[in-house]
Amino acid sequence: MSTKLSPSERNSIAQKLPDWSLSENTDAISKRYSFKTFPEAFAFMTHIALHAEAMDHHPDWSNCYNKVDIKLTTHDAGGLTQKDMTLAQICDDAAEQYAR
Amino acid sequence: MSTKLSPSERNSIAQKLPDWSLSENTDAISKRYSFKTFPEAFAFMTHIALHAEAMDHHPDWSNCYNKVDIKLTTHDAGGLTQKDMTLAQICDDAAEQYAR
Repeated sequence: MSTKLSPSERNSIAQKLPDWSLSENTDAISKRYSFKTFPEAFAFMTHIALHAEAMDHHPDWSNCYNKVDIKLTTHDAGGLTQKDMTLAQICDDAAEQYAR
Repeated sequence: MSTKLSPSERNSIAQKLPDWSLSENTDAISKRYSFKTFPEAFAFMTHIALHAEAMDHHPDWSNCYNKVDIKLTTHDAGGLTQKDMTLAQICDDAAEQYAR
């Protein structure tokens, strides 16, 4: 079972992950990534999928052509944990590789 | 530009794609696939992604762990076309491979 973020860890989200939004209704963070075409978007998703499976922490995500919307939360903790912060950073780092 | 399905072609959807639902608000069909785990779900998505890119016809889809929700419509035709029927059949055929 993961531990939910502490108040100070939550306050650091805006600084550490400035382009992510806190969801209104659930304790989650979300972000939209835009790529040039579908192959770049899906290559990005494949990269994230491999990390997600290795972490046993999976995103809720959707894709429409060159757009990928990602929402992260830790279901078994009932909210945001360090796993979400880690996966969010992996997403941001990967997006730079697949953008062109 | 693709041509929208004729009335008789639309009427055949229920017979040809019995597990797909016509969307209420847009001229689209949708279906949820369930797999055992994330790797099966993402393997299915990868299979579909390759066909979608080859067809230049891409799904609107989302994934949450072992679930994949797929919505098909042809944006440049403003509704359902034969491309959606073809891609729906590809999805159904692929799902059988990745289910276990």
